[in-house]
Amino acid sequence: MTFLSDYGLDDDFVGVCHGVVARIARGVRVIDVTHGIERHDVRAGALALRRALEYLPAGVHLAVVDPGVGSPRRAVALRCAAGEHLLVGPDNGLLWLAAEGCGGVAEAADIGASPLRLQPVSASFHGRDIFAPVAAHLATGTPLGHTGEPLDPATLVRLELPRARPTGDGVVAHVLHADRYGNVALDAQREDLAAAGLRVGETITVHRRRARYATTFADVLPGELLLYEDGYRVLSLAVNRGSALAALGLARDDEILIAPGAP
Amino acid sequence: MTFLSDYGLDDDFVGVCHGVVARIARGVRVIDVTHGIERHDVRAGALALRRALEYLPAGVHLAVVDPGVGSPRRAVALRCAAGEHLLVGPDNGLLWLAAEGCGGVAEAADIGASPLRLQPVSASFHGRDIFAPVAAHLATGTPLGHTGEPLDPATLVRLELPRARPTGDGVVAHVLHADRYGNVALDAQREDLAAAGLRVGETITVHRRRARYATTFADVLPGELLLYEDGYRVLSLAVNRGSALAALGLARDDEILIAPGAP
Amino acid sequence: MTFLSDYGLDDDFVGVCHGVVARIARGVRVIDVTHGIERHDVRAGALALRRALEYLPAGVHLAVVDPGVGSPRRAVALRCAAGEHLLVGPDNGLLWLAAEGCGGVAEAADIGASPLRLQPVSASFHGRDIFAPVAAHLATGTPLGHTGEPLDPATLVRLELPRARPTGDGVVAHVLHADRYGNVALDAQREDLAAAGLRVGETITVHRRRARYATTFADVLPGELLLYEDGYRVLSLAVNRGSALAALGLARDDEILIAPGAP
Repeated sequence: MTFLSDYGLDDDFVGVCHGVVARIARGVRVIDVTHGIERHDVRAGALALRRALEYLPAGVHLAVVDPGVGSPRRAVALRCAAGEHLLVGPDNGLLWLAAEGCGGVAEAADIGASPLRLQPVSASFHGRDIFAPVAAHLATGTPLGHTGEPLDPATLVRLELPRARPTGDGVVAHVLHADRYGNVALDAQREDLAAAGLRVGETITVHRRRARYATTFADVLPGELLLYEDGYRVLSLAVNRGSALAALGLARDDEILIAPGAP
Repeated sequence: MTFLSDYGLDDDFVGVCHGVVARIARGVRVIDVTHGIERHDVRAGALALRRALEYLPAGVHLAVVDPGVGSPRRAVALRCAAGEHLLVGPDNGLLWLAAEGCGGVAEAADIGASPLRLQPVSASFHGRDIFAPVAAHLATGTPLGHTGEPLDPATLVRLELPRARPTGDGVVAHVLHADRYGNVALDAQREDLAAAGLRVGETITVHRRRARYATTFADVLPGELLLYEDGYRVLSLAVNRGSALAALGLARDDEILIAPGAP
Repeated sequence: MTFLSDYGLDDDFVGVCHGVVARIARGVRVIDVTHGIERHDVRAGALALRRALEYLPAGVHLAVVDPGVGSPRRAVALRCAAGEHLLVGPDNGLLWLAAEGCGGVAEAADIGASPLRLQPVSASFHGRDIFAPVAAHLATGTPLGHTGEPLDPATLVRLELPRARPTGDGVVAHVLHADRYGNVALDAQREDLAAAGLRVGETITVHRRRARYATTFADVLPGELLLYEDGYRVLSLAVNRGSALAALGLARDDEILIAPGAP
């Protein structure tokens, strides 16, 4: 089983959830994917879960980024159509991209009133009281149907990402996410750029600035802007030893025009 | 077994203690409760250990927040009267609240000169040289009596917390602890407030400021002060999307008057 | 198996590597030594790995501090002559001190094109694509010779540290490393100081400043400079409740004259 959250490691939230799991599923190992998701950033959590999932063992994936805890948002457990993955977390889009990446949701349960939850359920710590115990029981083989009430997968909250589109002189992409180094993940694919005639190694224009369509940071000088495919095959903007986010003054969902040739 | 400390994760202190445990107790899993306790903050560590313990598996709990390492403070291993919990750490109050929460100490050993310690014992890293190896041996079933010299539990260093008290127009509580978001844990209980006629949902006065006695952050507007029961049923002060600690200018042990009605 | 890196815990890099290992080596436990090595600081990683290794279980040690990822630097797996330790990581000196501490390298493989790597190999995340899978296979018992091409250990990149030397009036040591508290590790040994007539408990001169050759921080007043043997028996400079690095204005490899008596 794996565990991703925005709890951070300064407090005992993560450790307590591990404790809850260990009391229920004694022999089960829990891999911490990360607990460093920016607080309440559901989209960053959803993107991290989707890209990590390909490398994680089949099984139960517990994910908690839950700004709406205590509100009527649903708590859910999902079985993916492919990959033998089960996802447990709030129904706020956090699990959506990962589920899409595994063929969609084959079966879903509303676990807000799960018979497996710890009682009394607190108003603010559903990771401990609902999500962790349900995930732990699933990891020991409890069928999804026993964790809560059946739920129509079509009613799950979706997470819509912007989509890059071709334009007269290139590709219009969008800012999906920036990491703490100021590297900026875009929604364009390598194929979108190829269709617009952009080739790796060339000088291009990104957001009215000169950039290099490169393979690695080392292809450009310190301070120079590059567009590259990151370790997860996501097209990203970076400044070698700098911050593309700051240099270009970008914010989430901003449009970025990528075009051939120098500005 | 579990492990809590103020070592942080930037250095290899935690990893080395895990290594020491793994060499002694090969199959034993170690849950990291947290290593983010503020450096040398024994009370914060004691509070975290007490509140986490309820959710941790029975067994050995290693805890190291040890400003007095190298001084004559004792190193101890304790068996709790209830819950099948063993506690290992410095005798500076760190283990006291957890032990109290488990029915008190049934048996204690001074492990400063334990035959199980790693030698030579360093002046500054007793986590590695004394506490981790003793905890690991206990986790493999070594009896407490074999870890050191018997010690009268009545001589253990206690941790005294302030106590809330009723007053003419409400309750006088104290600041126990603040987390990094500036949420402030108090020593009052929900029952103390009920006895003073305070009811959830009402406007109240806290430290001469208007506040809401609420269930969750979402019950008040951003910037507003609330008094609420946190995920561990501890009454706490918070400012929605702000810091109650900063807004009220509070410090540890400060007295807080909580009274019915607006100021 | 153990894992040390400069990946930090804010992102999912460490979790994904754990996932890769778990998919290959299902039952194998992975101890995180630390992921808090300063980004790209190969020497800090090499020093941490060497000092931790003595306390880690025999087996495979995965280490990734890899500023040259994507360049022609080699990726290697090493078998140490003593201690039944296998080391996996980039051939940039990171593994060198640990290997030296285990009797040198008995057998080495170039794993850059390992049949065990994940394909396609990304340009920037060899921890996931090369190092973690090779380490996992080694942990399941795959012989080193099956992980890549044989490599002459004499061609491995070495990490040269400065060396303390005696001088007319004491010892000239060098700054090896500073931790985040500003404590400064030196290359001198306790024996070097003894040969120069320095004894624990005495007032000495360090970098033209008065200092105490002490056992613990508590031996000096807050703000005072001390020279002491840290938890790993490394001679270090510190200022009690302060930063020796800042107080003395030191940088890596700086020469430090240590002499008997007050300045």
